[in-house]
Amino acid sequence: MSAQRWKCVCAYDGTGLDGWQSQARGGGTGVQDLIEARLAEIFKTPIRIHGSGRTDAGVHARGQVFHFDAAWDHGAAKLLAALGSRLPPAIQIKSVRAVPADFHARFGAKGKRYDYYIFLGEADPFDRAYCWSVYRPLDFDAMRAAAAVLVGKHDFRAFTAINGKVREDTVRELRKLTMVRRGRRVQITAEAGGFLYKMVRSLAGVLVAVGEGRMSVDDVRRLLQTGVRTVEVQTAPPQGLFLTRVSY
Amino acid sequence: MSAQRWKCVCAYDGTGLDGWQSQARGGGTGVQDLIEARLAEIFKTPIRIHGSGRTDAGVHARGQVFHFDAAWDHGAAKLLAALGSRLPPAIQIKSVRAVPADFHARFGAKGKRYDYYIFLGEADPFDRAYCWSVYRPLDFDAMRAAAAVLVGKHDFRAFTAINGKVREDTVRELRKLTMVRRGRRVQITAEAGGFLYKMVRSLAGVLVAVGEGRMSVDDVRRLLQTGVRTVEVQTAPPQGLFLTRVSY
Repeated sequence: MSAQRWKCVCAYDGTGLDGWQSQARGGGTGVQDLIEARLAEIFKTPIRIHGSGRTDAGVHARGQVFHFDAAWDHGAAKLLAALGSRLPPAIQIKSVRAVPADFHARFGAKGKRYDYYIFLGEADPFDRAYCWSVYRPLDFDAMRAAAAVLVGKHDFRAFTAINGKVREDTVRELRKLTMVRRGRRVQITAEAGGFLYKMVRSLAGVLVAVGEGRMSVDDVRRLLQTGVRTVEVQTAPPQGLFLTRVSY
Repeated sequence: MSAQRWKCVCAYDGTGLDGWQSQARGGGTGVQDLIEARLAEIFKTPIRIHGSGRTDAGVHARGQVFHFDAAWDHGAAKLLAALGSRLPPAIQIKSVRAVPADFHARFGAKGKRYDYYIFLGEADPFDRAYCWSVYRPLDFDAMRAAAAVLVGKHDFRAFTAINGKVREDTVRELRKLTMVRRGRRVQITAEAGGFLYKMVRSLAGVLVAVGEGRMSVDDVRRLLQTGVRTVEVQTAPPQGLFLTRVSY
């Protein structure tokens, strides 16, 4: 029996977890660490999983994707059941599927969708870990105008949180950046082939800065043109962010 | 300045809390204990609060009501702010209002609404603490027929979880018992002037037993007639239950 590549989709509540990948070697509380520990129990050997990308501490996922290689003779459904049992309740394996050996969760990803949730005012106890409470009134027309400026192919250097010189290519194509308001909940949806580190949270932070009147749509245009991250560019807090879908 | 009676509405996430009132004397983690500790800080003297009723460990509230008496010269808005700050994030004070001295959160309650949430299948990590996952298929027509039998004025002795002889009056008028299904979520709403101990969770347990085919609508009718709680009457787990509203 030879090793097979498996593609898994998982959801996790990032509250109290150490992000996708903890810095600790062994015994970490990153999602990856916890899933790898379960796989090691099932297969009696260390198994390395490869996620579509990392998520920071406190960030949630409804559709994170990872792959791994393992010899397993009992079919995907039983692997799903074995993987799902005894994981912490904060992590759920939603599907397991056998894929060709050239499938790669990270390098094969064609697009990602993130959702960022804002609550206007104090969120109730059931929502606090899943949104950003914003207390000042927001000008949604201004935010939509800023979103229209941001969507498209741009150098998003000003929207990544890495200090010092950014050496990687920082051009990304933001395919979608929309806002939907339902009562006091605002859902920002961002889709792109790929995102820079902390880019979605920076986009959410800038949209709120525009909504609060601390930045203008022209300021946003200037961020894209100059690539200089100004002090007005906040990184929105992690608990509002959900990795919703990875497409291949 | 003389003492004034204050009516407060609060929400809490019961996950990990010791119910409304902990059994411990001092330092308990019941919602009441935690609010009283905050009031003692504000008023520099012990303040006893009176809830509309207790909720069990793990049960949530969106609209629990309590009252207390205290001399406070700065208005309801500042009392709300003082009370709200430094409470654990699981507890939220939604409103504070000065009321006449004869207002009583428990004895003055005219009605209560509870909602019980069922998820058909494995709930995702964000919902697990707020619903009961039911894995067998449910016959909603049978459940609705059973709800129609239960609604009205009956002796609900078979629907309370106290062991041995129940001495209190167990007749209650169930004004409303409805079910709404949205995708894989089922919301059961129950309204009455008052409920017996664990009555809503027993109603939910019986409705699911009927939905799964383990009880018939005739069995439900018999429960009301005989007042004998049979082994089929499960108490549904606490995390699906929300105290939604108390009316006066």
